[in-house]
Amino acid sequence: MTRYVYQFEEGDGKDRRRFGGKGAGLAEMSQIGLPVPPGFTIITEASLDYLQDNAMPDDLMDEVWLNLARLEDKLGQKLGDAEHPLLVSVRSGAPISMPGMMDTVLNLGLNADTMEGLGRLTGNRRFALDSFRRFIQMFGNVVMHMDHSRFEQILEALKTEVGIHQDTELSEAHLEELITRYKALVLKSTRREFPDDPKVQLEMAIVAVFNSWRNPRAVFYRRVNKISNLLGTAVNVQSMVFGNMGETSATGVLFTRNPNTGETGMYGEYLTQAQGEDVVAGIRTPKPIEEMAQEMPKTHQQLVDVCQLLEFHYRDMQDIEFTVQEEKLYLLQTRTGKRTASAAVKIAVDMAKADIISRQDAISRQEPDQVQRLLYRQIDPSAEVELLAEGLPASPGAAIGKVVFTADEAEQRGQAGEAVILVRPETTPDDIHGIVAAQGVLTSRGGMTSHAAIVARGMGKPAVTGCEAVHISLEAETFTVGERVIAKDALITIDGGTGRVMLGTVPTVEPELSKEFTELLGWADSYRRLKVHANADTPEDAAKARELGATGVGLCRTEHMFMGQERLPVVQAMILAETLEDRQTALDQLLPMQQDDFYGILKAMDGLPVTIRLLDPPLHEFLPDIEVTEKALAVAKSQGSDADIMRLEAVLRRTRSLFEFNPMLGFRGVRLGVVYPEIYAMQARAIFQAQAALLKEALKPHVEVMIPLVGTSEELARMKDMVADVNKAVQSEQGIDLPYKIGTMIEVPRAALVAGSIAEHAQFFSFGTNDLTQTTFGYSRDDAESKFLPAYLAEKILPENPFMVLDRGGVGRLIEIALKDGRSTRPDLKVGICGEHGGDPASIAFCHEAGLNYVSCSPFRVPVARLAAAQAALKK
Amino acid sequence: MTRYVYQFEEGDGKDRRRFGGKGAGLAEMSQIGLPVPPGFTIITEASLDYLQDNAMPDDLMDEVWLNLARLEDKLGQKLGDAEHPLLVSVRSGAPISMPGMMDTVLNLGLNADTMEGLGRLTGNRRFALDSFRRFIQMFGNVVMHMDHSRFEQILEALKTEVGIHQDTELSEAHLEELITRYKALVLKSTRREFPDDPKVQLEMAIVAVFNSWRNPRAVFYRRVNKISNLLGTAVNVQSMVFGNMGETSATGVLFTRNPNTGETGMYGEYLTQAQGEDVVAGIRTPKPIEEMAQEMPKTHQQLVDVCQLLEFHYRDMQDIEFTVQEEKLYLLQTRTGKRTASAAVKIAVDMAKADIISRQDAISRQEPDQVQRLLYRQIDPSAEVELLAEGLPASPGAAIGKVVFTADEAEQRGQAGEAVILVRPETTPDDIHGIVAAQGVLTSRGGMTSHAAIVARGMGKPAVTGCEAVHISLEAETFTVGERVIAKDALITIDGGTGRVMLGTVPTVEPELSKEFTELLGWADSYRRLKVHANADTPEDAAKARELGATGVGLCRTEHMFMGQERLPVVQAMILAETLEDRQTALDQLLPMQQDDFYGILKAMDGLPVTIRLLDPPLHEFLPDIEVTEKALAVAKSQGSDADIMRLEAVLRRTRSLFEFNPMLGFRGVRLGVVYPEIYAMQARAIFQAQAALLKEALKPHVEVMIPLVGTSEELARMKDMVADVNKAVQSEQGIDLPYKIGTMIEVPRAALVAGSIAEHAQFFSFGTNDLTQTTFGYSRDDAESKFLPAYLAEKILPENPFMVLDRGGVGRLIEIALKDGRSTRPDLKVGICGEHGGDPASIAFCHEAGLNYVSCSPFRVPVARLAAAQAALKK
Repeated sequence: MTRYVYQFEEGDGKDRRRFGGKGAGLAEMSQIGLPVPPGFTIITEASLDYLQDNAMPDDLMDEVWLNLARLEDKLGQKLGDAEHPLLVSVRSGAPISMPGMMDTVLNLGLNADTMEGLGRLTGNRRFALDSFRRFIQMFGNVVMHMDHSRFEQILEALKTEVGIHQDTELSEAHLEELITRYKALVLKSTRREFPDDPKVQLEMAIVAVFNSWRNPRAVFYRRVNKISNLLGTAVNVQSMVFGNMGETSATGVLFTRNPNTGETGMYGEYLTQAQGEDVVAGIRTPKPIEEMAQEMPKTHQQLVDVCQLLEFHYRDMQDIEFTVQEEKLYLLQTRTGKRTASAAVKIAVDMAKADIISRQDAISRQEPDQVQRLLYRQIDPSAEVELLAEGLPASPGAAIGKVVFTADEAEQRGQAGEAVILVRPETTPDDIHGIVAAQGVLTSRGGMTSHAAIVARGMGKPAVTGCEAVHISLEAETFTVGERVIAKDALITIDGGTGRVMLGTVPTVEPELSKEFTELLGWADSYRRLKVHANADTPEDAAKARELGATGVGLCRTEHMFMGQERLPVVQAMILAETLEDRQTALDQLLPMQQDDFYGILKAMDGLPVTIRLLDPPLHEFLPDIEVTEKALAVAKSQGSDADIMRLEAVLRRTRSLFEFNPMLGFRGVRLGVVYPEIYAMQARAIFQAQAALLKEALKPHVEVMIPLVGTSEELARMKDMVADVNKAVQSEQGIDLPYKIGTMIEVPRAALVAGSIAEHAQFFSFGTNDLTQTTFGYSRDDAESKFLPAYLAEKILPENPFMVLDRGGVGRLIEIALKDGRSTRPDLKVGICGEHGGDPASIAFCHEAGLNYVSCSPFRVPVARLAAAQAALKK
Repeated sequence: MTRYVYQFEEGDGKDRRRFGGKGAGLAEMSQIGLPVPPGFTIITEASLDYLQDNAMPDDLMDEVWLNLARLEDKLGQKLGDAEHPLLVSVRSGAPISMPGMMDTVLNLGLNADTMEGLGRLTGNRRFALDSFRRFIQMFGNVVMHMDHSRFEQILEALKTEVGIHQDTELSEAHLEELITRYKALVLKSTRREFPDDPKVQLEMAIVAVFNSWRNPRAVFYRRVNKISNLLGTAVNVQSMVFGNMGETSATGVLFTRNPNTGETGMYGEYLTQAQGEDVVAGIRTPKPIEEMAQEMPKTHQQLVDVCQLLEFHYRDMQDIEFTVQEEKLYLLQTRTGKRTASAAVKIAVDMAKADIISRQDAISRQEPDQVQRLLYRQIDPSAEVELLAEGLPASPGAAIGKVVFTADEAEQRGQAGEAVILVRPETTPDDIHGIVAAQGVLTSRGGMTSHAAIVARGMGKPAVTGCEAVHISLEAETFTVGERVIAKDALITIDGGTGRVMLGTVPTVEPELSKEFTELLGWADSYRRLKVHANADTPEDAAKARELGATGVGLCRTEHMFMGQERLPVVQAMILAETLEDRQTALDQLLPMQQDDFYGILKAMDGLPVTIRLLDPPLHEFLPDIEVTEKALAVAKSQGSDADIMRLEAVLRRTRSLFEFNPMLGFRGVRLGVVYPEIYAMQARAIFQAQAALLKEALKPHVEVMIPLVGTSEELARMKDMVADVNKAVQSEQGIDLPYKIGTMIEVPRAALVAGSIAEHAQFFSFGTNDLTQTTFGYSRDDAESKFLPAYLAEKILPENPFMVLDRGGVGRLIEIALKDGRSTRPDLKVGICGEHGGDPASIAFCHEAGLNYVSCSPFRVPVARLAAAQAALKK
């Protein structure tokens, strides 16, 4: 028989899968002697068995009663006992933290009898009454699925009846009346009496926690965060302590370091005379933890010590929930704290320097996707802004978008591609889908640890919380700041790093890398084996990439250079040429322009390899659309010159002759080079002339010529000979040696399958995984992503979008085949990847494992690639 | 040192590569005692060495002089000796026969002195003079590259001067004058004296033969016939015999059996008082060989004996050249005779029955591409035709096309896709390119062994030759038959099986398989291991395929069934449906129609497997083009009803939403099935209902359901479950067991790469090599074949069109991977191929070697596939 239930002191603090994060933390803290209210954990298997059978596992409740008895013995209290009533909280605790997603019931065990007992024991009957009415409300909502607002309505109605404004003004009689009305509401709504038997309450609460695993917002959260549905949740039953027993009681949450910046020192908030949920829900704005040093100095010092102990124990920054019951500190939870990307970097680097963790750990601990945010653009500090208000800097980054007031609208418009900012008084777990789709979040209430702040930080969305100057009218769909009224759809900018809310679109700038980040990347470089190059088509991009740590250009696309305003007419003339002579004339005009392009890039990457890909796209991409030309021709025929008409007719003829059914699989890449060798010859000449010029300036250009879309060794052989001829000619004209490498992109499956023979002519391979993914799957990316791919991802037919995360089974296998065969022909074959996957951490891990030499990605992905490459190396 | 020169009796008759076909035949015949004029062979290596260095190999001529001396000793004659002059022929002889492509010089050794000697020896000075003037003409043309017609002009001018019409009327004095004028022409044209020294003549002739290997028509012939340029040619120097020494002399060519029909008995032609080239050139229409039985009965009987001996020796039908010099028979050449497809089949079957060859040889000897012609359509015997004329049935088959009169025009228009018939007085090797591009050939002169006849037969083109009723005016570009004038571009039909020339387009019918062909295919079936199925979408196609020997339907495409006139509107309604309900309504209408389709096909293939592929093409293929709808909408808006406008607007909306950039890689195949499972469910239901109906008629339908375009095992798993659900439902509705197989097409590279996991859900794989070739190469067939593929084939970047001959390196490797992984998951996995390659012999050989279970091809390719499968098995 499976054992489902463990007292905290019996639990396994390392086994988060079975005990859940919260249960493991409670077990661990209990066992290292920290003040934890006693309790027990029902492990995750129980929820899975329940969810599978839709029935409580055999004997589970027997085990619960046994452990309840042990708890009662320990405390000298008893569930339902009027004299010494035991009250418990029942909380979910999944293996992976899902803050706010799942259900919690506090004060369980209260009924008319135990309420009085609690009053007697605490000498505070009003407190007991208030606890009872809160319990009915929470139990009714969480366990009996009643709408929260219906209780609130009764409360408000009573307050109006008796003419009071604050909850604290409610008398014992008011609370008694409230309890009566609440119970009547329960009966009316659910056709069931509110359960007075605490054992019935407990069993119902456990079932409710189990079921909360599959509530829609939890399912959505797991999908967004890629958490398996098969983990299940543990249930923690813990004896209650009360932060709402007067002014010497309090409750709070804190991080052992600043989760926004990573700076050392406690960072948190607390509320006196409050229960735990009050802080997180953001309903009252709590006080910063620093104030506690004055208000409760002893407890404050205790917390400082606890933080140090926990950080050292867990070797990471912790997120703690605590309650002070009449000056006594209790810890209710500890878990690894969520943090911003920059905090994650700073904390890891600081801890490594303090020898709490190793440098390897500091690297492995980073989430590359999160680190990427450090490279996002930030508000230009020199920009003139129209400041509306300032709130709390809850989650850093700049977000610009139109104001919307509901999560549903944010989702709808955000998914349609609009940039929106979700503005709410506060957010709840039901708003998650809106936060996902919005650029950022602004709330008027709640602190740095409110729901909005935590969730936004986890997602890396900019957020400003507790911006109390903002008064929101959900009905009017406006918010006012002083006299100003901001309506729905107004453009605003929020800066989650400073808490500023600004009107309109504010200019942004590239971020600077922090000292710690630079240091961490330096460590990463010492562990990684993969080189990191960048995809760069301009000298500016190349310089930026180099600054961010790229040690070469892995892909310089020459077609972008053909699109410039002064060049396109020449390119079009080249394409429209009907004779080789006419084409050559146009190419001669392009030559000096291309030479300048290559000169600049090679110079920016001086001393490092630059892989230049010759022209790739189909020629019709450089001509106007057929319809556009048809319309222009119609106009010309009615009012243009004969020359115009002839030119447009020629364009139309050529465009039609170049029309393709499937341009992706058409007349492009090396196929152009074979049919029009003069185009590639011009490009080769431009490259070598640029190289010669740089060598004469005593620089060190490292030229690599890359032929795209090769599928047969013969194609490459021809182009290799052609390039060699041009090289020889330029060498003799310039009287200088012009060494270079020649290679190819592997971007159609056949190239991978015959890589052994292609490698006879190639000194390097670069996997063009964008096209290779298209051809391997038979997906046109443009069509797939707008047609069936969303359904495939939603239905889990594909685990990931293969255009973002490299498909190991298909594309990866081709890469492995090509690598093996290519290297068996040419052992020193240099092999890299230059598709979008070159910047994706999971794909980089594959590249490392497969034995590639380098990855090439966009300049702003270079730091992430350096980190991911080190992580892959360390994993091995 | 390489030995280059061998006397015929020293040659190796088996080594055609070194001795060439002619040299090997002469060696063989000499060695088995047949009457061959003595001579020697310069082997192919000599020509290759010459062509490589552009210079005569060292010592080659020394070896020639040595062998010439041995020949002179043997005959008691001497080259250049006035008393006993030796005259020789110098002929090319390549390893693979290239009839008429290369150069020949006869009567070499003549000059003023030896001419007189020849006159004295033969007692016929006029013959000697005529031989000399012919020699000057031939040598001038072949060796000195002068235009043939310039000699003819001199001859015609002289005849006019002296007032005679026939060459035979020329007196000795006339011939002397002609020789003088010819020599003057040579000097004037080439600025070189005609060489009187026979040794100079011989060396020049050998060089000319070497060079003829690279003359344009030979290069073209080799390209068309896929003969390597690296073979080179041998040179045969042979003592002359004379068929033009009076009425007891003759020359002729014959086949040991009828090369058109395969019937036994000699088949050939001869001319008395003529030299060899006269017969082949088709200038004089020769006499059928049967007449020789009367005219030269002894020689005729000798020839009958020689034919039997040679056939038995070579175990194949021979093509012989002979000369009779004053009643003495000499054999000048023997080679395997070219024949029509039906003759090839009949000869092989007859020889196997006569135990001359084995049944295996009879099979292996067939050219599958040629055999395919037996299945081409033929003139409907019951058709009323407008007969213009009748010529010789030179190469069987029916051809319909527009009349053109030059090879260049035939090539130009034929390559542009027009059907043309090349009409010429006679053809020469210079016309080859026109014959290749024409549908058929009609000549007014020449016999069954004329150039036109031999070449057309070799290519399998229909040809009618020697159609003397046709009078051609090349200037006017017309031909007349009696009073009728047929101009260029008139449509005619020729029947190369009967010799008929008909006006207009004549209806054709399917051919019947000959008794011998049926017998041969029966033998083939006993040797082959691959099964042969057919691609058939209708009951008629299925029945035809079965009749031609298919043992199943390997691919039944259901989309063709959607295109019928009464169905398309329903299909369109299904596509335009905006709700599942509307779509279901349309699908319900389609269900009974689809059920009928499947009922018919399963019935036609009763007892044999039928693989039905569910809907594959993108939905927009069933909707009109955007432009068409836009135009219709414009019309409707000016004069149509509101309902029309709304309908057209809906069509336009949907067509636009279905637009794809690369439809080949778009929303089709299983992707439709996943997004619209109701479509596949309808098809599955139609299949199973048809199956149930047939089972209730006590028939045996073997159902295989095939899911197209699968790339992940998950796609197939979903569809498998869906089909299983429908199957269960229909089983229980019909109260009958409905067994079936489910499988998938492997047509994107990823499917092959993850075949191991796909095989978990598939009972069979069918390689869709059309699409697999497109995605493996990254070629859109529609675009490639109109853009770069012709250049790739011409430039030999690809050895073959990969859409016609399966690419072993890329596509083949994927097939091997899929086969290995698929069978390791499921050892009894049934695997076939259903692309166009399923009917291509080279691809079938690959399928056999790779270990596939079956090939599936179009019904009319089934016999060829049976044969090719047997050949592949026998080769192994």
